[in-house]
Amino acid sequence: MHFVIHRETFVQGVQHVNKAVSTRTTIPILTGIKIDASEEGVTLTGSDSDISIESFIPKADEEKDYIDIKETGSIVLQARFFADIVKKLPGEEIELLVQDQFAATLRSGSVVFNLNGLDPEEYPRLPNLEENQTFSLPQNLLKDMIRQTVFAVSTQETRPVLTGVNLENEQDQLSCTATDSHRLAMRKAGIESEGEPLNISNVVIPGKSMSELRQILEDTDERVDIVVTESQVLFKFRHLLFFSRLLDGKYPVTSNMIPDYSKTTMEVPTKDLLHSLERALLLSKEAKNNVINFKTLEGRDIEISSVSAEVGKVTERITCHSVEGEELRISFNGKNIMDALKVIDSEVVHIMFTGAMSPFVIRPSDHDQMLHLFSPVRTY
Amino acid sequence: MHFVIHRETFVQGVQHVNKAVSTRTTIPILTGIKIDASEEGVTLTGSDSDISIESFIPKADEEKDYIDIKETGSIVLQARFFADIVKKLPGEEIELLVQDQFAATLRSGSVVFNLNGLDPEEYPRLPNLEENQTFSLPQNLLKDMIRQTVFAVSTQETRPVLTGVNLENEQDQLSCTATDSHRLAMRKAGIESEGEPLNISNVVIPGKSMSELRQILEDTDERVDIVVTESQVLFKFRHLLFFSRLLDGKYPVTSNMIPDYSKTTMEVPTKDLLHSLERALLLSKEAKNNVINFKTLEGRDIEISSVSAEVGKVTERITCHSVEGEELRISFNGKNIMDALKVIDSEVVHIMFTGAMSPFVIRPSDHDQMLHLFSPVRTY
Repeated sequence: MHFVIHRETFVQGVQHVNKAVSTRTTIPILTGIKIDASEEGVTLTGSDSDISIESFIPKADEEKDYIDIKETGSIVLQARFFADIVKKLPGEEIELLVQDQFAATLRSGSVVFNLNGLDPEEYPRLPNLEENQTFSLPQNLLKDMIRQTVFAVSTQETRPVLTGVNLENEQDQLSCTATDSHRLAMRKAGIESEGEPLNISNVVIPGKSMSELRQILEDTDERVDIVVTESQVLFKFRHLLFFSRLLDGKYPVTSNMIPDYSKTTMEVPTKDLLHSLERALLLSKEAKNNVINFKTLEGRDIEISSVSAEVGKVTERITCHSVEGEELRISFNGKNIMDALKVIDSEVVHIMFTGAMSPFVIRPSDHDQMLHLFSPVRTY
Repeated sequence: MHFVIHRETFVQGVQHVNKAVSTRTTIPILTGIKIDASEEGVTLTGSDSDISIESFIPKADEEKDYIDIKETGSIVLQARFFADIVKKLPGEEIELLVQDQFAATLRSGSVVFNLNGLDPEEYPRLPNLEENQTFSLPQNLLKDMIRQTVFAVSTQETRPVLTGVNLENEQDQLSCTATDSHRLAMRKAGIESEGEPLNISNVVIPGKSMSELRQILEDTDERVDIVVTESQVLFKFRHLLFFSRLLDGKYPVTSNMIPDYSKTTMEVPTKDLLHSLERALLLSKEAKNNVINFKTLEGRDIEISSVSAEVGKVTERITCHSVEGEELRISFNGKNIMDALKVIDSEVVHIMFTGAMSPFVIRPSDHDQMLHLFSPVRTY
């Protein structure tokens, strides 16, 4: 293998696939990045066996020539060193040459690295997915959907299926749901599909995969193609392929958990509520349970308070846009509410309570594509 | 005690004194910040018994009124919570009221915090230093002197005196020196003193104190007054008093370690050398000894290289402005050299070697107020 490649383009590709590489893998070959030079261009691959990322750099596009391929071939190089090295090379171009015994030489400017490589034949092949369930949505929308749900996945392995985000469709509406059984975050969006009617359900993608994917997605409305199979999901965008395994097990039915009536409803300025909870949590964090007390006052006012026996207490009053229905006193995990308020981009939230002992719902006030559900905390 | 204070001014004062507060102290009262309201203004104090910081906020200055003092008095409040709380209060002003039993009430906007305080009588008094050895220098210059030396202090407690920065004067030249016995950093500056001729020597300030002080110093040429006594040093600037204890023990005489001749000298572009070492360290870090090989080539070229049996090797060539004297091959700790190059603000460095087994000196090429000394590493 022998080629000369535009440094910045190569660095970007290496950084993308490096996101999939784990230093803690038990499979030695997976600590490397696979580099494959064909007549068409260079393909980079990184994998930790849960996530695999493939990045293709074409020889040239309309804008410019990226690679001068002198000899095709492949090599696997230690990701940990290789990613740092290419980032710090001084020249505009990098020459990569592989000789016998997987000995690679990397040249750029007046710098020469001689690196010990690994046998590319040992590197596992990526799956070839049958594309029977395929749909697409814009990169920036998918990025938002991940941001607005993934924080609510469970971090405990007692119910593994809850550590993932569940995808489901109802015609051309896709919903992403995450829950740790104390709170639930759900986000819907319109999708485009081709051919057969879609039937996505119980497609549970590990939260970690979603977080890595979010980091690679860009703020553009270029579309991502998503291919779903029994055990894998594939996201295709630009010159990238992002594979993730799916979680086994039956995701709980969440639609019937969401109350369809309410006893107390209110419209609250999002930032006021968020900052008030931040202050109240300064004390309740100490008690380590994040419990915040909430009650309605006369008129349109509500009161947020929390107590720490050791440090003291805090009380704060917020004036809402509207408060309707029964009086209410309720306690909840303030940290969970804050997590949700941070991903709601609307200026006002609509809160629906169904009593002091029952779950309650927070939504943005200006659209119904997002919903957050919380269990209260019993304090007596 | 009862006063209403401008929030931003109070927050800044609290943040400054909070730098001295340690959560790991064994003296409970020192986990707090002392707040003292007199007719003249509010004094804040934080201390971990090594460092003490006092910040005075006057009732008013030419620009504006900061405090409305309704009743004098004092209280100690838990620093950990108090510093976060004042930062997050919503109003432009904060009202602080202390009732019986050290119960403090903090009001701002629609927020009320009730905090349990501690007895201010238990708080240790700060020393009243006799001002017999006093000099001054600009804040930004002192900040630079700390940045350019403190990284070289020893982190090992085997010779405690080496964990500090040593101050010495020769007439109106002050020198700061730090060494961990493998490398030494020295910076000189002109100072102004009043009254008696100065006689500063063996004034060893803990590296940690210097680092904290550096964070509070601002990039202005307003002067800092420095008072030195047998066991304490005091830095006075703006409305701040920064006390640090001094380290016991005799600081080694370093002036005779610096070679006054050379066998090979060169002028090297600082950034080229720095980036080259960064790349070479990518491999030698793996071997965990940071050893870099250095040799002179024909003409004005030098070669930097490093080897890791597992990963591979790197070789790089740098063209210098000049190379004079004997040929040379030497090995050194590349990380130590990088630390020094990062604080040299000059574009070119002057390097003086005295042989492969002897210490060598790096200086900025455009002034002689700074010097870095290094021991080579034996590789055979």
